[in-house]
Amino acid sequence: MNESPGVVDLLGVLAYAELSAFTRMTDDAARLAPSLADRAALSELAVAEYAHFRLLRDRLTELGADPDLAMQPFAEALDAWHRQTAPTDWLEALVKAYVGVGIALDFYREAARRLDPSIAELVDEVLADEGRAEFAVERVRAGVTADPVAGGRLALWARRMVGEALSQGQRVAAARPELAMMLVESGADDQAEISRMFARLTEEHSKRMAALGI
Amino acid sequence: MNESPGVVDLLGVLAYAELSAFTRMTDDAARLAPSLADRAALSELAVAEYAHFRLLRDRLTELGADPDLAMQPFAEALDAWHRQTAPTDWLEALVKAYVGVGIALDFYREAARRLDPSIAELVDEVLADEGRAEFAVERVRAGVTADPVAGGRLALWARRMVGEALSQGQRVAAARPELAMMLVESGADDQAEISRMFARLTEEHSKRMAALGI
Repeated sequence: MNESPGVVDLLGVLAYAELSAFTRMTDDAARLAPSLADRAALSELAVAEYAHFRLLRDRLTELGADPDLAMQPFAEALDAWHRQTAPTDWLEALVKAYVGVGIALDFYREAARRLDPSIAELVDEVLADEGRAEFAVERVRAGVTADPVAGGRLALWARRMVGEALSQGQRVAAARPELAMMLVESGADDQAEISRMFARLTEEHSKRMAALGI
Repeated sequence: MNESPGVVDLLGVLAYAELSAFTRMTDDAARLAPSLADRAALSELAVAEYAHFRLLRDRLTELGADPDLAMQPFAEALDAWHRQTAPTDWLEALVKAYVGVGIALDFYREAARRLDPSIAELVDEVLADEGRAEFAVERVRAGVTADPVAGGRLALWARRMVGEALSQGQRVAAARPELAMMLVESGADDQAEISRMFARLTEEHSKRMAALGI
C-alpha cells in the first residue's frame, strides 16, 4: 500500500468535502426547494454524499488514522467555500449541487489515476453514484428556458463558485504540499503541473455548464 | 387493506416528521457537535430518519396518494415544533434527538396496534432502527454527571419540548379528525380516548427522561 502521508490528507479532504456537502445540500433543500418532492430529490443526493463520507471515514480508520484529525486541516477552507457560495434560490441550489458534485468527482478521478489499489476501489464505489446529480440538469435547463435572464445570472454565479473553489484549492495546496504533490503527475512537484491539473478541472466544469445550458 | 382516509394522513404526518427530523438533526449536528466524530454520529441518525421518510413516501405512492399533498397539512405544525425546540447546545441536541425519535417510535407503535398489515410491515422496518438513538444516552448521562446544573436545565427543556409536541399534536388532531380517530382505540372517538393516548405517550417520555438521568 502507498503509505505516503498525502494519502491521509487526500482521504481527509474528500471526507470533509462529503460531510459538508451533505450538511449544506440538506439545508439548501429545506430552505429553497419549491415543493416537498424537490426537497426530497436534493435530500436524496445529500444522503448519497453522506454514504461517501462514511466510506472515506472508515478507510481512514482502517489505515490507523484518526478521521477527525485527518479532516480538520480542511474544514475551514471548505466551510469558507460554502459560505461564499450559499445559494439564494432553487436554481442556484441545483447548479451548486450539480457543479459541486462534478468537481468532487473530478478530484476522485485525479486521485484514482495515481493512488494505490485500495483507494482506487473506494473511488470506484463513489463514482458508481455519478449519475445521481443528473436530475438537476433537466430542472435547470427548464428553468433557464422559462427565464433566459436567469441563465445569465446562473452562469456568472457558477463562474464565481468555481473561482472560489480554485482559490480555496490553491490555498489548501500551498498549506499541504504533500497532498498537492500527490495530485500532480508522479514525480513532478512544480507549480506548472498543479496549474495543469486545475486547467483540467476547469475544462470539465465548462462541459457541465454547457450541459446545464448556461 | 384498510383504506380509511386516515391512513394517508397517518403516513403523511409520519413522512413529514421524518423528513423534517432529517433536516433538523443534520443542521443541529453541524452547528453544535463538539467534534467531527460527534457531528457524524448525529448525522448518521439523521440519515436513518431519511431512510424512514423514503419508506413512507414510497408507501404513499403505492397507495396512489401524492406524497406532497399527504405531507402538506402537517408541515406547519411540525416546523413550528422544530422552531420552538431548536437546541442551543450539544446536550440539548442529543436530548432532542433521543426524545424526538422516541416520541416518533411511540406513534408508530400506536399506529401499528390498529392498522392494516401492509402498514404494520413498514412500522416493523422503522422499529428495527430503534436502538440507533441510544448513543445519545451515555453522552447525555456523562454530560449531566460532569455538570449537575445542566441536568436540571435539560429536564426543564425536555418538558417544554414534550409540552410543545402535545400542543401541536392536539392542534393536528383537531384539524384532522380522521387521523385522530384512527389513533384512538377502534370505534371510540371521544376526547377521553385521545387523552389516554397522550397519557401513554407522556409515560413513555418519562421513562426516556429517566434513562437520560434528567
